[in-house]
Amino acid sequence: MVDGALGQIRPEVRTLTGYHVAVPPHTIKLNQNESAMELPEAIKEAILERLRGVSWSRYPRQGAGELHAALRDALNLPPQIEVLTGNGSNELIQALLIAALEAGGNMVLPVPTFLLYRQIATILGATVIEIPLKADMTYDAERILESVERAKAKVVVLARPNNPTGTAVTLEGLELLLENTEALVAVDEAYHEFAGDTVLPMLPEYENLVLLRTFSKALRSAGLRIGYLVAHRSLVEEISKVLLPFNMSVVSREAALSILEHRALLQPGIQETIAQRAWLFQALERIDGITPFPSQANFICFRTANSPRSLFDGLLQRGILVRDVSGYPLLSGCLRVSVGNSEENRAFVTALQMIMEDR
Amino acid sequence: MVDGALGQIRPEVRTLTGYHVAVPPHTIKLNQNESAMELPEAIKEAILERLRGVSWSRYPRQGAGELHAALRDALNLPPQIEVLTGNGSNELIQALLIAALEAGGNMVLPVPTFLLYRQIATILGATVIEIPLKADMTYDAERILESVERAKAKVVVLARPNNPTGTAVTLEGLELLLENTEALVAVDEAYHEFAGDTVLPMLPEYENLVLLRTFSKALRSAGLRIGYLVAHRSLVEEISKVLLPFNMSVVSREAALSILEHRALLQPGIQETIAQRAWLFQALERIDGITPFPSQANFICFRTANSPRSLFDGLLQRGILVRDVSGYPLLSGCLRVSVGNSEENRAFVTALQMIMEDR
Repeated sequence: MVDGALGQIRPEVRTLTGYHVAVPPHTIKLNQNESAMELPEAIKEAILERLRGVSWSRYPRQGAGELHAALRDALNLPPQIEVLTGNGSNELIQALLIAALEAGGNMVLPVPTFLLYRQIATILGATVIEIPLKADMTYDAERILESVERAKAKVVVLARPNNPTGTAVTLEGLELLLENTEALVAVDEAYHEFAGDTVLPMLPEYENLVLLRTFSKALRSAGLRIGYLVAHRSLVEEISKVLLPFNMSVVSREAALSILEHRALLQPGIQETIAQRAWLFQALERIDGITPFPSQANFICFRTANSPRSLFDGLLQRGILVRDVSGYPLLSGCLRVSVGNSEENRAFVTALQMIMEDR
Repeated sequence: MVDGALGQIRPEVRTLTGYHVAVPPHTIKLNQNESAMELPEAIKEAILERLRGVSWSRYPRQGAGELHAALRDALNLPPQIEVLTGNGSNELIQALLIAALEAGGNMVLPVPTFLLYRQIATILGATVIEIPLKADMTYDAERILESVERAKAKVVVLARPNNPTGTAVTLEGLELLLENTEALVAVDEAYHEFAGDTVLPMLPEYENLVLLRTFSKALRSAGLRIGYLVAHRSLVEEISKVLLPFNMSVVSREAALSILEHRALLQPGIQETIAQRAWLFQALERIDGITPFPSQANFICFRTANSPRSLFDGLLQRGILVRDVSGYPLLSGCLRVSVGNSEENRAFVTALQMIMEDR
């Protein structure tokens, strides 16, 4: 009888391992590229105040008119470009892939990258064609293009900067791709505030470009689940059909409005994170047996001469939780550490030095 | 070039109209079966207080351990039955259908019912086999069973009580179905608190039964987007793989914990809604040209001898927004009205009487 009920579940799902981030006990959390800083109290209080003024028992207004207008305004979007908000950018990536990929359809994915892109496509029964980054962890735009054309792929997903490497495709490489294919090119800019450039100005020119952003990183709101997608209006209209109605709670909507209104308060934190990243990179470079990759995001990927698992365990024994990414393509021997605050980064470097000297 | 980018979108999506609830200007809102009562201030304040104590910048703990434990406790679940929480029950229905339905796979759906079930399955490329309710708006369990077996359907979705009719499949009819098929039988109990019975005690016996519930109706929290699914643990584990990680915000999680803790405060509102439904039903029965269907939910579906559209418009001119369901199968000439508070229900009945006398 168990077999009977479970037999209704598709084999693609049954053979899959769920996406799950293990969070063992720790004192310093540097494993999920969250902001080291909480939302400022002034913004939290503004959000709580807004929540007192809205109904919680009614469905959120659909289409999120006010929030979309605020985002359009903040991004200074021209009329032909539209925005779509979601319960985290993951939901919008899922909607895009549901809209474009049929079972057996092809998606091209430069790797290593954020694991969820592949996971979502696999669940939908699509085929994922992985294209390795170059040895210096930059994108191989020609090879991606060639693969898209050969496989007649519907979608390419690129993280820019990329997670977990911290590197970014050049705008020239991206232009080559956008100009030479009709496939949708989804660019996930989850970390763009730490990189300093963006594909946003390219949107009017390229009708196959889909930009994804999140409030989870530089905007310090991973717990609130707010993301958005930007593309040509006609494409956004198609993707919006796939999104569930009322996908954003009134809380996420009101919070997003407050955060946008007060976003100037978050700017110094971004500068501080960039400064801490520079400090952390130099400190890592100075440790014998550690090779960090230059990063444009709020984390650093580094290779160790040690066993990455024993290094991960050694850090965790000292209370510091990082991410073991050594199982990713091209990343054997690698760990990833989020840029924390000054105290966290120093504690991490001290622990790492001690472990590396002990070997 | 537009054609190029839009050409990447699947035809099932392109030909679809998005699910959208129009909300024209109104003074009394009786179109979405929301609670007529806001969450009590005591619960709202308890939620806001909890939110001050948690991080907003960190990802929610995955798996929602504390919330799942609280729900297991509230529902008194035996060990082999597990719970899964979502961003509204819609997300859990979508996850179930993604897990079970492949393109071309079959789902059996008694109609008329909530439109989103069909919409989600269609987007996934599945085939929906509609089985009409009987003339008295009750389920035809034998015919559903026959159709499931003939089509080798993976899933049947039933709303109990059903929306928009307010009627419920008998537990005997449901047993017939559960015992004679291995298809998954998803029972959406969005309105169960107003009906007084539930399939919950049947879960241990039937490994193909999937129960869906929401905080949006009797628990007065449609704006917060909280739903849950209950089934055998092995099945829940498969469905959970399809859910996006961090699908519930910290706010929804903390709110759900507070609402569960204080749920006794919501009980009088449920009794009041049931009493108002009885008053409204009798008032509708007394109006010439109006035939209400008996309802076990927080709304009433009624047939009018008038044009339903002109009746809808007449009510809206008087500031009262209801739902025109006359386009649903079997429901020609029908509107649906949510049970409001005493004042709203009286205003609705008065307006309806005036319009019906005017014809």
